[in-house]
Amino acid sequence: MLREAVYHLAHGSYAYPVSEDTLRLTLRTAKADVQKVTVVYQDRYGALKPCVANMEVVAEDELFSFYQTDIQLATKRFGYVFLLDDGKHSVFYTEKGFFDDIPPNTQFHYPYIALQDLWEPPKWSQGAVIYQIFPERFANGNPANDPPGVEPWDAATTVTSQKGGDLQGVIERFQHLVDLGVDVIYFTPIFKAPSNHKYDTVDYYTIDPHFGDEETVRQLINLAHQHDIKVVFDAVFNHSGFGFFAFQDVLQNGEDSAFSHWFNIESFPVQTDPPNYETFSNQIATMPKLMTHQQDVKDYFIEVGRYWVREFGIDGWRLDVANEIDHEFWREFRQAIKAENPEALIVGELWHEASEWVRGDQFDSVMNYSLQYACLDFFAKGTIRAQSFAHRLAKVQVNHTQAVNLAMFNLLDCHDTERFLTTCGGDVSRFSLAVAFQLTYEGAPMIYYGDEVGMVGLTDPDCRRGMIWDPKAQNLDLFTWYQKLIALRREHPVLRSGHCRTVWADSATNVYGFVRFDQGEQVLVLLNNSAGAQSVNLAKIPWPVAVPKQVQDLLTKEKFALGDVLVEPYGTRIVG
Amino acid sequence: MLREAVYHLAHGSYAYPVSEDTLRLTLRTAKADVQKVTVVYQDRYGALKPCVANMEVVAEDELFSFYQTDIQLATKRFGYVFLLDDGKHSVFYTEKGFFDDIPPNTQFHYPYIALQDLWEPPKWSQGAVIYQIFPERFANGNPANDPPGVEPWDAATTVTSQKGGDLQGVIERFQHLVDLGVDVIYFTPIFKAPSNHKYDTVDYYTIDPHFGDEETVRQLINLAHQHDIKVVFDAVFNHSGFGFFAFQDVLQNGEDSAFSHWFNIESFPVQTDPPNYETFSNQIATMPKLMTHQQDVKDYFIEVGRYWVREFGIDGWRLDVANEIDHEFWREFRQAIKAENPEALIVGELWHEASEWVRGDQFDSVMNYSLQYACLDFFAKGTIRAQSFAHRLAKVQVNHTQAVNLAMFNLLDCHDTERFLTTCGGDVSRFSLAVAFQLTYEGAPMIYYGDEVGMVGLTDPDCRRGMIWDPKAQNLDLFTWYQKLIALRREHPVLRSGHCRTVWADSATNVYGFVRFDQGEQVLVLLNNSAGAQSVNLAKIPWPVAVPKQVQDLLTKEKFALGDVLVEPYGTRIVG
Repeated sequence: MLREAVYHLAHGSYAYPVSEDTLRLTLRTAKADVQKVTVVYQDRYGALKPCVANMEVVAEDELFSFYQTDIQLATKRFGYVFLLDDGKHSVFYTEKGFFDDIPPNTQFHYPYIALQDLWEPPKWSQGAVIYQIFPERFANGNPANDPPGVEPWDAATTVTSQKGGDLQGVIERFQHLVDLGVDVIYFTPIFKAPSNHKYDTVDYYTIDPHFGDEETVRQLINLAHQHDIKVVFDAVFNHSGFGFFAFQDVLQNGEDSAFSHWFNIESFPVQTDPPNYETFSNQIATMPKLMTHQQDVKDYFIEVGRYWVREFGIDGWRLDVANEIDHEFWREFRQAIKAENPEALIVGELWHEASEWVRGDQFDSVMNYSLQYACLDFFAKGTIRAQSFAHRLAKVQVNHTQAVNLAMFNLLDCHDTERFLTTCGGDVSRFSLAVAFQLTYEGAPMIYYGDEVGMVGLTDPDCRRGMIWDPKAQNLDLFTWYQKLIALRREHPVLRSGHCRTVWADSATNVYGFVRFDQGEQVLVLLNNSAGAQSVNLAKIPWPVAVPKQVQDLLTKEKFALGDVLVEPYGTRIVG
Repeated sequence: MLREAVYHLAHGSYAYPVSEDTLRLTLRTAKADVQKVTVVYQDRYGALKPCVANMEVVAEDELFSFYQTDIQLATKRFGYVFLLDDGKHSVFYTEKGFFDDIPPNTQFHYPYIALQDLWEPPKWSQGAVIYQIFPERFANGNPANDPPGVEPWDAATTVTSQKGGDLQGVIERFQHLVDLGVDVIYFTPIFKAPSNHKYDTVDYYTIDPHFGDEETVRQLINLAHQHDIKVVFDAVFNHSGFGFFAFQDVLQNGEDSAFSHWFNIESFPVQTDPPNYETFSNQIATMPKLMTHQQDVKDYFIEVGRYWVREFGIDGWRLDVANEIDHEFWREFRQAIKAENPEALIVGELWHEASEWVRGDQFDSVMNYSLQYACLDFFAKGTIRAQSFAHRLAKVQVNHTQAVNLAMFNLLDCHDTERFLTTCGGDVSRFSLAVAFQLTYEGAPMIYYGDEVGMVGLTDPDCRRGMIWDPKAQNLDLFTWYQKLIALRREHPVLRSGHCRTVWADSATNVYGFVRFDQGEQVLVLLNNSAGAQSVNLAKIPWPVAVPKQVQDLLTKEKFALGDVLVEPYGTRIVG
């Protein structure tokens, strides 16, 4: 037994409550190193008799197997150790290390399931289909508010292009979103700002006049809510725009400005080329970094967050550059936002390992870039094969609680990356396969506007082209594919809220498969990421719950027995 | 290279800021498996040129080696990977796994050192000497306030014994604490409560009349502060006492009580035998558990915390049963207390792995029971030898930031455990050795009243005997030993605030040694936990900084060269 590989912590994703009296435990071992893992648990004061539960493998990556089980105690106070058996020896793994027996004071403790710690992201966000809109490029509904020098909608996009997209355009094109079947719209910033992307906010309380006004926003939110669609705004609190009143005040009044402590100015007078103040990224003079640890700065921006929830009824915030702002800011932000609306969603932009931010005190979920990278490598670039893909997914999955995984914004691309279809070399079959994965896998799939009609584009600014509205230029087959998958997701709650387990990962045939399951239903998704038809024998699938009595191909409606299922080249088979 | 053993996380104790632009990184490998570990780091936006730093082993347990280094970047935004070389191969370890090269998007990121995240426990608490007083048993200064039925001071203690100890007694015996040289007094609860231990609080705003009154407390705190001694109170918010007004109201008014939601009552009427409500531990009817997630309960107890800091100037709180209260309560508690006094200390009673509570948002430190257990096993029971002792210490050390380690309440015993000297079988030489360890090792040593004069006792209630004041009954040699060590600690700041590294752990001779060091000073502590004299060759010590030019035995004042140092049976040699 490889003791160095064995790992458990009595918190985080390794031990978390799933109900008032039930704790979910995960234990890591070296891959396939152990034959049996048991957890021996009891009330930590010994109030109840000791219990034993078997753990089962729920995920594997290239090095590790991850065992999991749920344990329940009426007193909600857990003391536990693991018994690992590799066929030759069995040994207890405890908080203090490995022992043949259980010495005193060696148990892991999950001291008590406090109700407050039994948190999860808003239910509506778990498994929701998100649609990301970059408003300047989605639809121009009101040419009267266009910025000067608007370029033709279809002209090549540059960093400074203005095309006239606005919120009235979203209202007019709303039926497109309804037809697609989305649950949430996430808007990149819409507050007053000079750039087309508006990540350089000048006024956090004003809708950019080229996008509309408060009335347009209210109309849009009402419209969305009438269709049971939630609206998430983008909060840029890491830095302001150059024209933000506080920064302008510092520019004018220097050291005497009442706002000089809102920024990190090296020396006065303020200089902009190069900037002698801290900025976002590499000396971007138009984006001075905000000192969010200062009480008045914190108060100002938390009130911004509160205001749009309270006054306009938005359903949540996506937080830009979230990981360069201190944790305490986000803790207070969360408290304030949830006080306005306990069901408001808070999602951080984090490109890297994010467990520190989704512990219940800060974000509900994050952008799932790790999943995006895995999809790019597997479906688009073909640099990894089915088994590696499964391993990459496993790493993300075991890093968070299930509820967080269900709320992760699973993106294939966004306004900051090349379009996924472009990375696929324009190959719609590969892209469709990735979309099938995105829309059936665990999480909240985020569709970047236009992906659903086959839009292409290299990275920023090319990925921000004007939305294609001409049906002749749209890939309608693709749109129908999205519709089908989203409809399937709505018909089968298990695709939104079910557990998710990899059950097939064959690097030879390059077929990857997973099952979504809950008490009532099981759905198998098989993805053939190869140019040849491949068959999978359903009897060999390790169904997580039990072999379903009737398996039915929900897409083709054909019936079949527990035999081979044929998956077309770059094809998807959904069996449930 | 054993890849399964390699571990790093870009947060917690594996990556934390030690200054505004410096990050401390830890990497775990299998023990002695790797010859060289390098970290390759750069600004995460590529603003600065890439840098390379070697890492060095700072701790080892039975399975792992822990490498550490500090890296610095003016932009405070870190992207990094590790290069591990085992002599045959070198491989990069990244957030996404192991690679021969560094693929895109694989770096670990510590996104930004935000000032707010650069937290540490109050400076005064780091390395401070704590003295724990159980007031009912320390000294009876005012017989007029004795409870009825007071037993003789020296009579055997029972669970219900009352001996008349009080705060006036502490005032009268204050010189004892000054003579000893303590920095902090931690009082177990002193609020109105029927028991002798007062963990069953009836009134959080009233000093127990048998202990004194507000005036006595003010006098005592003033006296302490005049001597530059801090005062820490004990907060029992997990449960109240039976007589607490809110519980009494529920008993009287049942469901109609405005306080019925302050407790978890299964059904009305309330029954007490057995209790039909949630309690501390196993159905202790006199300690009903408080529902601290309820807003008004939270408000009430946070105001209690604030009140004693604000109105009486106490310097901190030790939190009873801290891990059975939800994290959110403690986050708000911390904010409230630090708002009253940013230098107030918040210490949790946690007997187990505690990293979840000392991340900057909840506690400054915790009771270090893991260290106590290690000391019991090594010094008192002799069930482990020097190497295992070193391993046990290493596990605790790498689990926290250095600043937290410096503030950990390092106890040998307390009011809940057998006296350490008793576990030593009364062997003062073994006990003295443990005390030498406690008072020179990293952390805030906590002395349980009476240990310093040789008090003995089995576990609760026997460990709560009346303090021995008769000099003829006191072990004055022991007292002098404590004084010497504490004086040494005061003379040498490195013993309070320096780094700490195990440099010797020989299970054959059973000699354990560590070095405390900073830029200016190095002190070696050698502890011979055997019945025979042992010699250690100073030239073989892996001095962390450099071999000191002059090494001097500070206790004996004798000079010696870099040769063998003799350590007497159960003796201590301090070389600095």
